[in-house]
Amino acid sequence: MASGSDDDPRIGDISEGAVLRAILSRTAPAAHAVLGPGDDAAVIDAPSGSVVASADTLVEGPDFRLAWSSGYDLGWKSAAVNLSDIAAMGAVPTGLLVSLAVPADTRLSFITAMADGFRECCARLAPGCSVVGGDLTVSELLMIAVTALGDLDGRPAVTRAGARPGDVVALAGELGVAAAGLGLLFARFRDGATAVPVDRASLDAVQQRALDRQLRPVPPLHLGPVAAEAGAHAMMDLSDGLALDASRLADASGVTIALSGAALDALAFGGDRGRALGGGEDHGLLAIFPDGGVVPEGFERIGTVTARMGAPVLVDGQPVDETGWDPYRDWDHAR
Amino acid sequence: MASGSDDDPRIGDISEGAVLRAILSRTAPAAHAVLGPGDDAAVIDAPSGSVVASADTLVEGPDFRLAWSSGYDLGWKSAAVNLSDIAAMGAVPTGLLVSLAVPADTRLSFITAMADGFRECCARLAPGCSVVGGDLTVSELLMIAVTALGDLDGRPAVTRAGARPGDVVALAGELGVAAAGLGLLFARFRDGATAVPVDRASLDAVQQRALDRQLRPVPPLHLGPVAAEAGAHAMMDLSDGLALDASRLADASGVTIALSGAALDALAFGGDRGRALGGGEDHGLLAIFPDGGVVPEGFERIGTVTARMGAPVLVDGQPVDETGWDPYRDWDHAR
Repeated sequence: MASGSDDDPRIGDISEGAVLRAILSRTAPAAHAVLGPGDDAAVIDAPSGSVVASADTLVEGPDFRLAWSSGYDLGWKSAAVNLSDIAAMGAVPTGLLVSLAVPADTRLSFITAMADGFRECCARLAPGCSVVGGDLTVSELLMIAVTALGDLDGRPAVTRAGARPGDVVALAGELGVAAAGLGLLFARFRDGATAVPVDRASLDAVQQRALDRQLRPVPPLHLGPVAAEAGAHAMMDLSDGLALDASRLADASGVTIALSGAALDALAFGGDRGRALGGGEDHGLLAIFPDGGVVPEGFERIGTVTARMGAPVLVDGQPVDETGWDPYRDWDHAR
Repeated sequence: MASGSDDDPRIGDISEGAVLRAILSRTAPAAHAVLGPGDDAAVIDAPSGSVVASADTLVEGPDFRLAWSSGYDLGWKSAAVNLSDIAAMGAVPTGLLVSLAVPADTRLSFITAMADGFRECCARLAPGCSVVGGDLTVSELLMIAVTALGDLDGRPAVTRAGARPGDVVALAGELGVAAAGLGLLFARFRDGATAVPVDRASLDAVQQRALDRQLRPVPPLHLGPVAAEAGAHAMMDLSDGLALDASRLADASGVTIALSGAALDALAFGGDRGRALGGGEDHGLLAIFPDGGVVPEGFERIGTVTARMGAPVLVDGQPVDETGWDPYRDWDHAR
């Protein structure tokens, strides 16, 4: 088997320098990096005179299973979920710093596949952005901690706090598709409580798409700056489910978000409204636009902002359960 | 015991929001943060039009033992080692992003003590810098992944690659003190292979100081920008021992670093030259200044740069062993 061969060494058997060289040889030139990896620190362009920065970590167990995710998948997903937070401020991603903690028996090919996933996710979703730095440690558990950096292109950041009564609530992306993919993994690819490799051929095309969105999300990053340019009053990335995330935006702005059930149903994967409201990891953009202004292409109207009326989020006038996505509950229940 | 009381809950028993609020209530206002924690991302000043960024991770086992380090110690050290990489580019630290992965049974008081350590380390070593963002996940292993950001104040970054023959080699900080502290921990505070709590009273004042430098390093961060201002040709942070780190700078610059044994002995903690060359985690600054220029106060001359002569590093004309600090070897041999 290739997995035992000398040309695919274990991380614990080679030097950190050799691992880093293998990763860096797969890193795209960074358009925004003044000074890339290899020194004490990287230097990245910040033409606006400020830098947008966000950190998010994927941990084996609560966030992924190695039976279900390849190294490539994990690199892609780690990049996508972090880049999405930058886009949600209206910023353009400029660089990623990646801190890997990996078990000593991890194969080098797994790490280089992860580097490929980082590179290709950036190339597809955030051209010009790439891995500019990071570090590697040995650990008993695989963990991928990423910091994403971005530039606002001279605009103010679009926070969660600017929604005003009368504004339009809009969404870019699908609802519930990542949760549908996770549901398939738990329902179909376990032996008892143990995750087993995915047999894609056993899934139909719709199911394969849900699985792909769970393992390699494709958030609409380019629409973050578009929304900012269009004058969005508030915006956020949907990581924990629409109901919970919308309640956070409503609380930050001191308003109520009144959603249309029919509009949700039209965007809900498989027409499942409950999963559309509660399912996490979709990484769509929830944006609030001024009434009477233009809602940019790629966003769908899903409701309106009202003065605060008790509940932070309503669907067709009724309060919704804000219990959203909790990785410890939603991933670990089947551990 | 307080460790079992309801007023010090376990992280796994309270919401992520409650943990984050407890941490943020201990975070200093960030002088450079345009927008601090709480949104999808933070926004930090980058007045130079670029941002310096570096990431480093401390993992339980290879990097620390919970019997030896308090939460406060770990917050302090995680801040200090990351800030040091920013200073080594000649930059002023502006913000930290902290990704914590903690076991579910960790007490909240441990995490808030860590937040205190981050805050007080920044206040003492890098005033104006503070924690501006991060995230929290549950994991079986404690891991602290930090990204530090900084600003160059309009100067070019000081890399490892600018040393030229004839330049002066200088050092700010001590040599071997952190390794001496680690040696004490391994020699005096273990029961078999198991780390046991430190009894400070059993140590003399010199030993206590070495222990303190190991657990809560105080790198001379302010001297990074001072060296840059003085025209340093190259600079780096000493994390893996002078011999190995100097060889990296020599390789990056294509030169040989010729050190004076007498100068090393004067800076070596306890006069131990071997430990001064090989001991890691001192986080002093190795800086290369132009011949005939001013070597700023706080730096000591320890050698000269010559054209490349085979070995990257010489002491009194003799090649030195470049085997430096390796956390997996130097921490884990006593696991």
